[in-house]
Amino acid sequence: MVKKDIKQANELMVGKSRFSEWYSQILLAADIIDKRYSVKGGNVWLNYGYGVMLNIKKYWDELFHAEGIKEMYFPLLVPISYCEKNEKWWKGFKNQAFWVRGGAEKEEYILRPTGEPAMYPMFKTWIRTFGDLPLKIYETVSSFRYETKQTRPLIRDREITVWHEIHTAHSTQEEAEKEALNHKKMYDKIWEKCALSPLVVRKPLFECFPGAIGSFEYYNLMPNGKVMENGSINNLGQAYAKKFGIKFKNNTGKEDFAWMICTGNGARLLAAVISVHGDDNGLILPPEIAPIQVVIIPIFNKKNKNKIFKKVDSIKKELEKLGIRVQTDLRDESAGKKFYDWEIKGVPLRIEIGPRDMVKKSVMLVRRDNKVKKIMKETQLKQIVKILDNVQKNLLENSNKELRSSITKVDNLKKLETVLKKNKMGKVFWCGSESCWDKIKAIEEGVELFGTDLKSVKGKCVVCGKDSEEFGYVANTY
Amino acid sequence: MVKKDIKQANELMVGKSRFSEWYSQILLAADIIDKRYSVKGGNVWLNYGYGVMLNIKKYWDELFHAEGIKEMYFPLLVPISYCEKNEKWWKGFKNQAFWVRGGAEKEEYILRPTGEPAMYPMFKTWIRTFGDLPLKIYETVSSFRYETKQTRPLIRDREITVWHEIHTAHSTQEEAEKEALNHKKMYDKIWEKCALSPLVVRKPLFECFPGAIGSFEYYNLMPNGKVMENGSINNLGQAYAKKFGIKFKNNTGKEDFAWMICTGNGARLLAAVISVHGDDNGLILPPEIAPIQVVIIPIFNKKNKNKIFKKVDSIKKELEKLGIRVQTDLRDESAGKKFYDWEIKGVPLRIEIGPRDMVKKSVMLVRRDNKVKKIMKETQLKQIVKILDNVQKNLLENSNKELRSSITKVDNLKKLETVLKKNKMGKVFWCGSESCWDKIKAIEEGVELFGTDLKSVKGKCVVCGKDSEEFGYVANTY
Repeated sequence: MVKKDIKQANELMVGKSRFSEWYSQILLAADIIDKRYSVKGGNVWLNYGYGVMLNIKKYWDELFHAEGIKEMYFPLLVPISYCEKNEKWWKGFKNQAFWVRGGAEKEEYILRPTGEPAMYPMFKTWIRTFGDLPLKIYETVSSFRYETKQTRPLIRDREITVWHEIHTAHSTQEEAEKEALNHKKMYDKIWEKCALSPLVVRKPLFECFPGAIGSFEYYNLMPNGKVMENGSINNLGQAYAKKFGIKFKNNTGKEDFAWMICTGNGARLLAAVISVHGDDNGLILPPEIAPIQVVIIPIFNKKNKNKIFKKVDSIKKELEKLGIRVQTDLRDESAGKKFYDWEIKGVPLRIEIGPRDMVKKSVMLVRRDNKVKKIMKETQLKQIVKILDNVQKNLLENSNKELRSSITKVDNLKKLETVLKKNKMGKVFWCGSESCWDKIKAIEEGVELFGTDLKSVKGKCVVCGKDSEEFGYVANTY
Repeated sequence: MVKKDIKQANELMVGKSRFSEWYSQILLAADIIDKRYSVKGGNVWLNYGYGVMLNIKKYWDELFHAEGIKEMYFPLLVPISYCEKNEKWWKGFKNQAFWVRGGAEKEEYILRPTGEPAMYPMFKTWIRTFGDLPLKIYETVSSFRYETKQTRPLIRDREITVWHEIHTAHSTQEEAEKEALNHKKMYDKIWEKCALSPLVVRKPLFECFPGAIGSFEYYNLMPNGKVMENGSINNLGQAYAKKFGIKFKNNTGKEDFAWMICTGNGARLLAAVISVHGDDNGLILPPEIAPIQVVIIPIFNKKNKNKIFKKVDSIKKELEKLGIRVQTDLRDESAGKKFYDWEIKGVPLRIEIGPRDMVKKSVMLVRRDNKVKKIMKETQLKQIVKILDNVQKNLLENSNKELRSSITKVDNLKKLETVLKKNKMGKVFWCGSESCWDKIKAIEEGVELFGTDLKSVKGKCVVCGKDSEEFGYVANTY
């Protein structure tokens, strides 16, 4: 439907080596989003792209529900009085606010940039005693930031769509920290569904979310050598509880402030899927999140059309019985054109059925990820479940290999610069000081020691040479 | 969790006869929404209530997908320039707008009050030839209206949440009208899931959505005798296509404007479920949309606790295998307190298991809808599927009976007034003139001939006595 409307746009003009242009064109060509809507940083999700995103969302819904994290929904309008409760947070988001007034009233609200000021006044209402804890909730919602930096669809939008936030409150610090690790476990599973191997790092205190006392963040290596932040798990300590008055009576009747965790991510997951897996011919979707896992294309002429269409339909039904999401393409277009269209859309597996296949009672399979062709007997169609599984695993392995091969260990700033010039990532020891952090940042606009490894290893700081117990990763960042 | 936080609020203080108060208290007591968020007409969806609503949404997603209506998502910010394209629409919504500015910019946007101005500029981009038609899309999204009337949660909100809109474009009027009827068919199915029997009426032209040339609207009879509009299917003709320039070339190369239908509804479905089915003890949820269909409550003491809990768990598992959504309540509270809590929440079926049941290898079933108790042998648990089905049917029948018994046929205004005073609905012949319509409206503030029956029958207008081919329904409206 929309595929046709944008005929003028569904050709890929440049290869992936020109990543930024490639990314921009593929969003429309593959029916992911249409950015021709007249609001900067606001996009229309097209049906196909929204389908991929909702498949990712469906998975996080399942995971969160299974962990007893309850789904809720909070209003998008946040009273300014709520925002002002935490001046540190407000300082960080005020300049990026969308200001709202109702009718002829004065401006009283902003559109939610993050969940804290909307949720925590309610937490204060709901939490009275230790029996009310833990309180574990999440919502999937849009967030709004008036970005002054260049916007990029799904990467830096002004309306950040299909965004989830988990917020939990606990009676002890230990329980909160355990919860954060649990969020990490859930996120690892989401990454697996996306067939992506991200880098998970710790942020030093001075780089954390406003008010947080620690955080895990995920980063993806993008094809241009830059890294993109993709989700964070923030330990808020008691800072927000103190600002919002979220108190509870413990079992001895003493009052204490709640320990809180907030965790969020959204459409950047899809941005990473597109960027990491795609190639010159278009998207390559991991089967687990692909709206269409198998496309069946008949090779036919007027004479054999009916017969072949019938076969196509029966094979479709057989695959559907196996739980596979299948589509047939019966358009009056050349087979070549159809191959081209479905390659752009990244359907993991193509099945071709022509007159010769009919005779041999076989079909031709073509994998999107490695382009390998294979003839399969009709009696063996059950194997397709396993093939899709292999596509998923192969994509994950590729992502992991690419990430690992990009990381180069270096022990001085000169070498680090050389590595960065090659669009690679540097792995360095760091003493933990903000001044050494800043010196790395000074190498070039955009370069950053974006986080430290979760493991602790002894070495010498790449900047000052002092003893160091941490190592971290340096790259150009988004 | 939240249940506990609002302990102070989870008691029902008044019965359903004081409907307005009853409605207001049950929303919080049954964990549907919390309106203590500081934005008028903005509510926090609590987990339980959101679960019911998402069950309804899941069903409309299935229905729309099956009918080839493609899900998309459009930005919430609508440029004022888009709004101005249809001055009739803009006149209708301008005074209710939430105005938005980004950062230090001037006000350039409003928050979407309805989908047309956000979607139709894209329709213009996407539609070129008859091959691009029909274009059938929908989205589930919040809508925003700065209501000056009294707000009522889920009935009249300023942020209208979990709201869907279907928009379709067609190459012929006939096809568009067929589509509208198809939407009606889908809506009939949604009503069945909600176990509600609404009244579907036609609106006269002068009462239609701005620019529309005809519409179906649904109304529910509320316990206070008022009717509540609940969803509409609007035939937009070519009016919007002309305003937004949505043109297509037909197969002879001639240009024409598209014929369009828009259809929408949302959380009022849940408002009707709550209002129509509930009783003095709380909600009564139709099993099809209940997050918890069966709650199992053990009757135990310290001695037999382990044994009974084990049995409770095994019965839970057995019911889950039958596809039933089950919860157990193992709290250290009295059985009476538990019965009370789950009645408020409207769980369709309660199972009690105590020591005597253990001996007899039976369980006690209590239906929420008719309070009927029944002892059932453990070997017959499969019958619970059927019992839930009966609860669903019974609720639908009750809703239908209540509606039908409320309608009184009258042939003059005096009688009409008497009927209205009894909080009943009048069924009257109407000549089709706006002046007679207005005379009925003049009976009392809020009284309205809110629509005409889809069937055409000859009679005499209740106001002027002239020949009439239509009959309609008069009631107090929300």
